[in-house]
Amino acid sequence: MNGNFSKKDAIYCNNGAWEAFKKTLSNLQESSVFILVDPNTKKHCLPVFLEKSNLQKAYTVVEMPHGEVNKTISTCETIWTELSNKGADRGSLLINLGGGVVTDLGGFVAATFKRGIAFINIPTSLLAMVDASVGGKNGVDLGMLKNQVGLIQNPDAVIIDTTFLRTLPKKELVSGYAEMLKHGLIHSEKYWNEIQSFFEADEEEVAKLIWESVCIKKEVVDEDPREEHRRKTLNYGHTLGHAIESYSHQNSIRTPLLHGDAVAIGIILATYISSELLGFPKEKLEKVAEVIGAHYKKQSFSKTDIEAIIDLLAFDKKNRNGIVYFVLLTDFGDYKTNQTVTNELIYSAFNYYN
Amino acid sequence: MNGNFSKKDAIYCNNGAWEAFKKTLSNLQESSVFILVDPNTKKHCLPVFLEKSNLQKAYTVVEMPHGEVNKTISTCETIWTELSNKGADRGSLLINLGGGVVTDLGGFVAATFKRGIAFINIPTSLLAMVDASVGGKNGVDLGMLKNQVGLIQNPDAVIIDTTFLRTLPKKELVSGYAEMLKHGLIHSEKYWNEIQSFFEADEEEVAKLIWESVCIKKEVVDEDPREEHRRKTLNYGHTLGHAIESYSHQNSIRTPLLHGDAVAIGIILATYISSELLGFPKEKLEKVAEVIGAHYKKQSFSKTDIEAIIDLLAFDKKNRNGIVYFVLLTDFGDYKTNQTVTNELIYSAFNYYN
Repeated sequence: MNGNFSKKDAIYCNNGAWEAFKKTLSNLQESSVFILVDPNTKKHCLPVFLEKSNLQKAYTVVEMPHGEVNKTISTCETIWTELSNKGADRGSLLINLGGGVVTDLGGFVAATFKRGIAFINIPTSLLAMVDASVGGKNGVDLGMLKNQVGLIQNPDAVIIDTTFLRTLPKKELVSGYAEMLKHGLIHSEKYWNEIQSFFEADEEEVAKLIWESVCIKKEVVDEDPREEHRRKTLNYGHTLGHAIESYSHQNSIRTPLLHGDAVAIGIILATYISSELLGFPKEKLEKVAEVIGAHYKKQSFSKTDIEAIIDLLAFDKKNRNGIVYFVLLTDFGDYKTNQTVTNELIYSAFNYYN
Repeated sequence: MNGNFSKKDAIYCNNGAWEAFKKTLSNLQESSVFILVDPNTKKHCLPVFLEKSNLQKAYTVVEMPHGEVNKTISTCETIWTELSNKGADRGSLLINLGGGVVTDLGGFVAATFKRGIAFINIPTSLLAMVDASVGGKNGVDLGMLKNQVGLIQNPDAVIIDTTFLRTLPKKELVSGYAEMLKHGLIHSEKYWNEIQSFFEADEEEVAKLIWESVCIKKEVVDEDPREEHRRKTLNYGHTLGHAIESYSHQNSIRTPLLHGDAVAIGIILATYISSELLGFPKEKLEKVAEVIGAHYKKQSFSKTDIEAIIDLLAFDKKNRNGIVYFVLLTDFGDYKTNQTVTNELIYSAFNYYN
């Protein structure tokens, strides 16, 4: 199982991935190598990376603090300065070893350092493997607003090795799984059904399911790289999901939700709205709600919470002229973009979820 | 006199420029318009812009502080936040009205806001017209190091109107003139001779000379957008020029030099080194030194100054593997890239200048 989609969008998974890594390095002829990690990936993933890659070159480890709260321009500034002080030049290579925060931020740092240096992403979380690894989006948050600053630029290679998942906490696996569920919804009921066995599957089967997710996202992104139509489907469940995630981070009486946990709620809400507006089949909605209910801890939302979440929608990156557009489904794999949704319907959706 | 090079690299000068501006706006169908200024361009250029463009849309003025010292990621963060708070979305347009600091920083802000919004550059300084307007480079400084963070991305249009030069202080004109001198050196003795009358020319002649500079730079950039060979010639005089400029800013006993003033010195040094290493004709070197001596205030450099400037070369963006590469000339319009220069020769060059 491995794949090489195209020269500037080379994504590799398990078998053959480390050979591809070596080949990428030998093509780049980089002047120096920097590896971006956070404390967790430094401890758990860096030794695995060094063993698997059999890296024969001198390298410098650059460490950033852990978590979404540090996905900021200020962290970028620290890293740019460190790269500069440690002699990084235009021919240097940055290897981003970590979850979505490390690959998103590291990709942005590389794409803008001295107007762009080479970078390789090695996603170590399920979320980063099935989502951040494809499509070249990178960037950082601005205050409470996610990914407000960034670019679309593909890494020189993406190396997926499911070995990294062995040390990933279960809650992180569950969070990443939400994007696989989304891929099932926007792609096919067949893939949705396949991934129901994800948590019981062996490593080979897990790799196969991850690779299918990568392929689904890749197909969408290739058809519509600038997010003018079909790529909007990747935002399924994210319009409200992002707002819920932001709200959980800024509201101190709440535990901050992981991205996938917020998206899982967003998926139920979007599917309820889809059933009301576009006739997404009710029995399938029940099935979606049941699967998510089985994996994700129930949250509750008061009227005040919902009002605040609706207010946050105003900052969604996909807005235009102040109007919030949703992507909705008429069935698995059958979408409509640019749907407007009344606040009343959003309240009903939260009632359904509650 | 006007020109439209290509769809994504549309540069217009004087006649026809404002019609092109209107056409660009009508093609973009932007959701909202933001105009980035500094206090000087707000006062002197914004009224001219509003009259010339006959802008019929609502717009929001965003003001940044003046000068290179504010070309920082922190200024970007303030502007990104202001854009976000004032409802800018992916369909918004940013118009950068100002000198190189405003267009460099504003271009970077636009290219990374929500992963990229449309932007139009309206250079109001001579330096920005003949240099920053072409080639799509944008970015900000990192501490003392110039343009360490940025991108290459062309604006949706560049509108050059020499009317803006009427309110430009003389010293700013002289600073921008250094890039025209550089274009003469790297392009042809013919253009070098033509621009000798620049400060006595009428507005139409000035516009013609500026347009020729734009065309010279454009030809180079088109041939080599990623700066692999010929584009390096645009760096002529800049390797030492940038280091001198940085040094003048970080050394409190010196008056900070304008970019062009530092580049003018860098040009003399590079031309001396060219004559020593590559046989650039001595009598032409004398001519170059004489012209620059006539327009630019003499600076003096002690041994300590020169040592510090050489140390700063280590941070040049064009380095690779710690080696500083110069572009040098065998004659007007005839270059060699990737030349290494000993520190001894750099000392000799400063002696020649002193």
